[in-house]
Amino acid sequence: MYRSRPKGRLQNDASKLLSSVVEDRQIFYYDILGSQAHSLMLYDIGILTRSELKRILAPLEEIRKHCDIILSSDKYPSVNEFEDIHEFLEGYVIEHSGIEAGGKMHTARSRNDQVMLDVRMKVRDQINEICIAIVNLIDSLLSKALDHTDTTMPMYTHMQHAQIGTFSHFLIAYVESLFRDVDRFYVTYGRVNQSPLGACAIGGTSIQIDRNRTAVLLGFNSIMRNSIDATTSRDTLIEFIFSITVMMTTLSRIAEDFIIWSTPEFSYIEISDEYSSTSSAMPQKKNPDPLEIIRSKTSLLLGNSVAMVSTITALPSGYSRDLQDLKLSIWQSCDIALQALGVMNNIIKSITVCTERMKQGAVASYAISLDIAEQLVIKKRMPFRLAHQFMGALVQSAVSKDSVPLARLDEKDISNALGNVNFPLEVHEVMQIIRETTPEVAVRMRASAGSPNPIEEREAIRMSYRKLSAYREGIAKRKKSIETAFDNLLITVQEHLENKDG
Amino acid sequence: MYRSRPKGRLQNDASKLLSSVVEDRQIFYYDILGSQAHSLMLYDIGILTRSELKRILAPLEEIRKHCDIILSSDKYPSVNEFEDIHEFLEGYVIEHSGIEAGGKMHTARSRNDQVMLDVRMKVRDQINEICIAIVNLIDSLLSKALDHTDTTMPMYTHMQHAQIGTFSHFLIAYVESLFRDVDRFYVTYGRVNQSPLGACAIGGTSIQIDRNRTAVLLGFNSIMRNSIDATTSRDTLIEFIFSITVMMTTLSRIAEDFIIWSTPEFSYIEISDEYSSTSSAMPQKKNPDPLEIIRSKTSLLLGNSVAMVSTITALPSGYSRDLQDLKLSIWQSCDIALQALGVMNNIIKSITVCTERMKQGAVASYAISLDIAEQLVIKKRMPFRLAHQFMGALVQSAVSKDSVPLARLDEKDISNALGNVNFPLEVHEVMQIIRETTPEVAVRMRASAGSPNPIEEREAIRMSYRKLSAYREGIAKRKKSIETAFDNLLITVQEHLENKDG
Amino acid sequence: MYRSRPKGRLQNDASKLLSSVVEDRQIFYYDILGSQAHSLMLYDIGILTRSELKRILAPLEEIRKHCDIILSSDKYPSVNEFEDIHEFLEGYVIEHSGIEAGGKMHTARSRNDQVMLDVRMKVRDQINEICIAIVNLIDSLLSKALDHTDTTMPMYTHMQHAQIGTFSHFLIAYVESLFRDVDRFYVTYGRVNQSPLGACAIGGTSIQIDRNRTAVLLGFNSIMRNSIDATTSRDTLIEFIFSITVMMTTLSRIAEDFIIWSTPEFSYIEISDEYSSTSSAMPQKKNPDPLEIIRSKTSLLLGNSVAMVSTITALPSGYSRDLQDLKLSIWQSCDIALQALGVMNNIIKSITVCTERMKQGAVASYAISLDIAEQLVIKKRMPFRLAHQFMGALVQSAVSKDSVPLARLDEKDISNALGNVNFPLEVHEVMQIIRETTPEVAVRMRASAGSPNPIEEREAIRMSYRKLSAYREGIAKRKKSIETAFDNLLITVQEHLENKDG
Amino acid sequence: MYRSRPKGRLQNDASKLLSSVVEDRQIFYYDILGSQAHSLMLYDIGILTRSELKRILAPLEEIRKHCDIILSSDKYPSVNEFEDIHEFLEGYVIEHSGIEAGGKMHTARSRNDQVMLDVRMKVRDQINEICIAIVNLIDSLLSKALDHTDTTMPMYTHMQHAQIGTFSHFLIAYVESLFRDVDRFYVTYGRVNQSPLGACAIGGTSIQIDRNRTAVLLGFNSIMRNSIDATTSRDTLIEFIFSITVMMTTLSRIAEDFIIWSTPEFSYIEISDEYSSTSSAMPQKKNPDPLEIIRSKTSLLLGNSVAMVSTITALPSGYSRDLQDLKLSIWQSCDIALQALGVMNNIIKSITVCTERMKQGAVASYAISLDIAEQLVIKKRMPFRLAHQFMGALVQSAVSKDSVPLARLDEKDISNALGNVNFPLEVHEVMQIIRETTPEVAVRMRASAGSPNPIEEREAIRMSYRKLSAYREGIAKRKKSIETAFDNLLITVQEHLENKDG
Repeated sequence: MYRSRPKGRLQNDASKLLSSVVEDRQIFYYDILGSQAHSLMLYDIGILTRSELKRILAPLEEIRKHCDIILSSDKYPSVNEFEDIHEFLEGYVIEHSGIEAGGKMHTARSRNDQVMLDVRMKVRDQINEICIAIVNLIDSLLSKALDHTDTTMPMYTHMQHAQIGTFSHFLIAYVESLFRDVDRFYVTYGRVNQSPLGACAIGGTSIQIDRNRTAVLLGFNSIMRNSIDATTSRDTLIEFIFSITVMMTTLSRIAEDFIIWSTPEFSYIEISDEYSSTSSAMPQKKNPDPLEIIRSKTSLLLGNSVAMVSTITALPSGYSRDLQDLKLSIWQSCDIALQALGVMNNIIKSITVCTERMKQGAVASYAISLDIAEQLVIKKRMPFRLAHQFMGALVQSAVSKDSVPLARLDEKDISNALGNVNFPLEVHEVMQIIRETTPEVAVRMRASAGSPNPIEEREAIRMSYRKLSAYREGIAKRKKSIETAFDNLLITVQEHLENKDG
Repeated sequence: MYRSRPKGRLQNDASKLLSSVVEDRQIFYYDILGSQAHSLMLYDIGILTRSELKRILAPLEEIRKHCDIILSSDKYPSVNEFEDIHEFLEGYVIEHSGIEAGGKMHTARSRNDQVMLDVRMKVRDQINEICIAIVNLIDSLLSKALDHTDTTMPMYTHMQHAQIGTFSHFLIAYVESLFRDVDRFYVTYGRVNQSPLGACAIGGTSIQIDRNRTAVLLGFNSIMRNSIDATTSRDTLIEFIFSITVMMTTLSRIAEDFIIWSTPEFSYIEISDEYSSTSSAMPQKKNPDPLEIIRSKTSLLLGNSVAMVSTITALPSGYSRDLQDLKLSIWQSCDIALQALGVMNNIIKSITVCTERMKQGAVASYAISLDIAEQLVIKKRMPFRLAHQFMGALVQSAVSKDSVPLARLDEKDISNALGNVNFPLEVHEVMQIIRETTPEVAVRMRASAGSPNPIEEREAIRMSYRKLSAYREGIAKRKKSIETAFDNLLITVQEHLENKDG
Repeated sequence: MYRSRPKGRLQNDASKLLSSVVEDRQIFYYDILGSQAHSLMLYDIGILTRSELKRILAPLEEIRKHCDIILSSDKYPSVNEFEDIHEFLEGYVIEHSGIEAGGKMHTARSRNDQVMLDVRMKVRDQINEICIAIVNLIDSLLSKALDHTDTTMPMYTHMQHAQIGTFSHFLIAYVESLFRDVDRFYVTYGRVNQSPLGACAIGGTSIQIDRNRTAVLLGFNSIMRNSIDATTSRDTLIEFIFSITVMMTTLSRIAEDFIIWSTPEFSYIEISDEYSSTSSAMPQKKNPDPLEIIRSKTSLLLGNSVAMVSTITALPSGYSRDLQDLKLSIWQSCDIALQALGVMNNIIKSITVCTERMKQGAVASYAISLDIAEQLVIKKRMPFRLAHQFMGALVQSAVSKDSVPLARLDEKDISNALGNVNFPLEVHEVMQIIRETTPEVAVRMRASAGSPNPIEEREAIRMSYRKLSAYREGIAKRKKSIETAFDNLLITVQEHLENKDG
Repeated sequence: MYRSRPKGRLQNDASKLLSSVVEDRQIFYYDILGSQAHSLMLYDIGILTRSELKRILAPLEEIRKHCDIILSSDKYPSVNEFEDIHEFLEGYVIEHSGIEAGGKMHTARSRNDQVMLDVRMKVRDQINEICIAIVNLIDSLLSKALDHTDTTMPMYTHMQHAQIGTFSHFLIAYVESLFRDVDRFYVTYGRVNQSPLGACAIGGTSIQIDRNRTAVLLGFNSIMRNSIDATTSRDTLIEFIFSITVMMTTLSRIAEDFIIWSTPEFSYIEISDEYSSTSSAMPQKKNPDPLEIIRSKTSLLLGNSVAMVSTITALPSGYSRDLQDLKLSIWQSCDIALQALGVMNNIIKSITVCTERMKQGAVASYAISLDIAEQLVIKKRMPFRLAHQFMGALVQSAVSKDSVPLARLDEKDISNALGNVNFPLEVHEVMQIIRETTPEVAVRMRASAGSPNPIEEREAIRMSYRKLSAYREGIAKRKKSIETAFDNLLITVQEHLENKDG
């Protein structure tokens, strides 16, 4: 329909390569709303008569109501014959309203601003959904954390025992990361929620359009001013996908922790059966496949980020067809984000925490060493560097005795270790400190803000719940604002359609 | 069917996240052939009786013949209910042959070796198709090059005029790159064409299977020996995707050259209408969209490479579900490669070369400077560095005279430029050299191997055609070898099915 | 010094692989400040006596003042013998203050929180520098834009002529992108400006430290609470590098536009000689190398992003040595950002704009077609789709007449084109519209917000200057706040050192 | 020196951004050799007189002998003032031999072919070094494998116990991967070992040069013919970096396995103290840092691959300055490859294998289930799918009894499990099979090619050693061939310098 200058049709192979009809299905509904708003504005400024407007709105409304059927059934086989959804829609309108009316719908716009409009409307909704899914995941983590502020376990650095901590401390760490994740989406939303409509092909139009009017009709906060910028720039979309990628790294960390902790060797947690897979050959198998897929999807997101950035790198100003391919990556990334967040949420809810194994792990661990060293600092004013050396020697001797716990060392071992450091300490004092410093005592003695001391933990959970409410409210308000705009738009459309004068 | 240990079913959201049924459709046919070969071998070693074999082969053959229908229609709605195609296939066989026979089909194999088998069979075919598509593209380039060995034009570095060359010289440069591309695939094929079947889950089997037998039945060259390696390693697949990525960078270079050359400002070539798109708003538009999409698909391929490498980085030995996601990237990458090669081939064939514009571009260009400098070196034994300085000064003065061509400079200009260098040259000698060194003369004077001298070009084309034949033969032989193996396999299956004794 | 448990030294090859001394040089100064603040706090809570504090502060202050010499000269050859800068610093302090005092400096901290502290202090400063560099670049772009609101030129989509616009319109589009860039850094700053100090190894400490005190001393806004999160999470750093990457894509777009526009074929702009390179062989060469390097650095940044994300993907909670490698990518990325912004700024300032070529380009261009079509819509109420078809036919006939401008078509051409559309139009009316619609007239007729209408442009520039001032103020305030904190810290240190009682 | 057309010098900031002097140090020596060979050829074809040749060779030889001093000391401060090493070298020669002689050295070449020559010479050497390092690592793995063909341990999929295997089986799996790695480099070498010298700037030269002569002098196998291809294409370099990336994923897999196996919970291996790091805070720490860095370097390599591919994507034909940045990524990648291979080799050699822990792990594991199921298939002709179900039920009941080993189940448990499957089995037969199937027995019963059966393992090791010898020989031959060429080149140079006639 648009081939006014080139002759003939696109060859089939080129057409197949170029077609975006499949990925456009995600924005078809928004394209219709955008076309309704644009037509209403064209009527306001006198480009369309009341009657022309009515003739355009009728097929648009018809198609809006049966959007899903059109996309999925064979009733409208023509969709796939078009290069994209925009061409299909204009063609449909012209077919049903005539060229005199329908031929005016595309006045003062271009697919270049139109596609950005649709994408921004879609991404706006996706951001709200993702924010809600993160908020829900945080909620589950906090609820689980509340149950385990006293569940001591070894904490790891380099996958080696580091310090004694609690299970809740990990869950709260995840929460902190997820709060930054949700905040990133929250900020990006503001940059997405601007209307590009009216930027036209690249340089605006000599028609006296009212860009703010369409922006308001479609629930946008403001307009993207410069017309080159509005049609060329994709930085906000890349920022969005980057934020998903970062969020996926948070989920991949949880996944990795849980995969390790559910090995027979660790046995700290057990993934529920309904989130475990098995083997076609090995009967004993119970595998944490959903966690593994969350992990691999993180890499997929990184791949999508790369594809997007590499695509726009060194692209000159003005729309190029390369930009079309970004859509593929965006829709896939959104789907993954929502799926991964949902599954992770259900895994958290249904997990079995093996508190006894965790506690035993803590008791048998040399991770208590730093706590003991710090007691020597506090009680004996031993310089920390010496306490560190002394404890290192002590652990060495415990390891050499078949890796017994420190509490099982005898006086001679301690006396030997003391020989390594030049500091006055009594063997029995050391023994007493070692014995008193159990994992439970250790976490309760933690004195720094943000430590796994159960009191600190409960305070962190309380504060997080409060933060969570604020996000919930903000997101709900945003959703409401879009819904209201759409409701008003459709009422206005309805009024015009019912108007007898048209 | 496999959930012997975990209770109940996978939750829907996990199941949706894990399902690979969509991407598995690409390997379904191979999975059936693999199952037939495996069953024949199980019969050979006595695990299956003749009758059991027949009862297994019957449903396999049934499903093989109606493969497409099963995958696309609603007749077999059950496919999507399974986690993957392997489970569906075994379920189907057991349903139709009973647990006594069908329950034996999966003896001594696992989905871990099975999926690698299928992927290798599929990739093997894809490599052959890609090799053919490259060979065809080279053919078109050579044919076009033959027409343009005398079409002089400026050659560019940094997008600035560099040296005078010919259009064919670019086309032959593309050919050289594509020959390395095809060679990479050619080598990778050898690494792909090894059977992993029989590696089982990770550690082989205590059943006395004959791995070489199934390898031969399925047309493989040899087996992947170590069972951990056979089920864990994905390096060969990544090598394959890397090779597609590199090849796409070759295509993206051609695309970029062509996009630049078809701007109104260059007008060196014109993309045919059937490979051009237009605008919904701007009536005059004729855009090289297919070339732009080839360019963006290169970035998509890079994204796929990243996703794949990042997925396997730091993954421990033994199958993890993460590996499933590689398939997505592989199939998509293969499709892109074949589509891009095909479209590029048709673009080359249908392109209009504006030889006059090219020649005018050469005539007006300072790119002739190096040729002139070299004439001063040859004829006047002028040290090159001085000739370089002299010519630089000459160009400066030509630019300052409203960018006239060098041949339009007068004696005074030359005399001034000579003032800059300490070397005895007569003004009229220089003028003569400048006038004699036209673009046509310049390319014919090129004396180095691989230069755009038309004689060199025609020799390069001749040699390339010979190389092309060798590749064509090699690829045809490989395809034949697989076809023969499959024919024999199906004949054997047929014999068993027709055998009355079973 | 820290090897209390493992025996002997690291092997040389491992030590070379692990050493971060080179990249740590960038944070050495911050490490010293951090150690001073930490020591002051340890004194406040009674871990250090006044005399011990003094003995620790003295070598710290000594080393702080001669930081550069220590890092660059051979006077302190020992730096390279340490695994990292932290070990060197503690070793130096202990050497000069004795184990009784110096051995206490590392109480209640670990390299895990220490390195995050240093990195955050450094990145905080880098963000401010980058924000200033962007602001300066915007300033130059606005200043250049003011000169060219009336410089008409073709605007391009798909590198083909699209609509008539102005040079300033491109510059303002760059400004809009850069405003979003600076805003991203501005937001990230808030997430960076939180102190991790006191999170210790992973689980805090049983020493009664005051984390808020060190945070204030070092100019932080708040603390990162959860100790696992503070030592493990790198999302904010990746967000920072992502923001640089996105900003580089903005610069790469400017670079690409400028590279194309400075080809002989376009000749719209000329890069100044001091930002151009040449060739060792081709005397006539003047190449836009700095722009090309800005383009390639964008890819380097993408590579850095990938390295960082891939590194943290699937890494379990708690510090792993993998995280060390992120520093390399961060420092390099910061350097590139600052260099690229600075060079781009100077290129903008020194560029020659060939306004005549631009205007000629506009006059000769079919990009005027949409403006003419819109006049038909406005003046003749022609449905846009018909006007589009009519103009397409007109352009076709102009192209077939050796690509003459539309204004050179005669009555017959127009009459023929009218035959294609069913709409009543007089040939002479069309001719008049075509003749009246010159490029200058066209841009002045543009009526949409954000179009290249010179009035719109000047308004956009005015608004941008206002926005710029706000950013300048905000950044200056942030810098001041850090400087004040550091000044106070050093005054306090000085007071302790001068105290006779110590 | 080359700025014949642009006036003045490059601005400092541009110069800093563009300078490649630092990374060029890696190719300085090759640049000198290349210049010597080129000069000899220029003499052969009569461009240089004998005396001129001698005057050029003298400073080249001087600088070649003191190459390291020039690069590292302050004696030649001028190096950093040049844009690159090529300009420095030509400047040095002209300074010492005069413009009449030295000014001729750059005849018929350009930095565009020169830099590709240098890079190819350097990469050629690097490939040989990497091949040797891989071969050495394989050697260590095979030697360690020979010791552990009978060391049974659980093998893992999804990090869950899968089948019983041996430690050697993992080591041989690594060997198989590394053989493919070395083979990739081996093939790439052939594509690297071609001389681009004489392609000049982009279009060859009208000087009658002998490209094959310089190729032979510098030890190349052949020439890269087409001059655009020779100066533009970087696909072979990217192929090289891709191969390093893939190889690093192999090393990262070994690293990950070893990191997991050296956790206290697994305790299968112990990294030697000289390849372990510790903590500044936690005295008990012994961390596998070198393995973690090998893991993160894999991500760094992926980042380098991305930077390189993204750089060349959509770059037009002909040298652009963007290509310069590839060198940075290449040198860094080579260093990482060699360091990582060396450290991994030493880690393998010095590792402690805790064979008892491994064997205990195997004994306590349900990984024996598949072996038992297969015994039921072999001895009882039980359909595998039923055996799978039966064993699944058995494992379930063992897990529910506090996870006892299968051998500790009693008759009732077995009888219950049998109730789940419809197949005639005697409880005591099952018990006997379970008891007989110990881990040691299980691996010896493995019957498939490439299984962990110790006999298979030893055969695999034997075959690998043979393959190793072949690679060793091939690499040695290649190194020899380059050395011989260089020796001959330097002898010829010497002869000319000593020639009295010159």
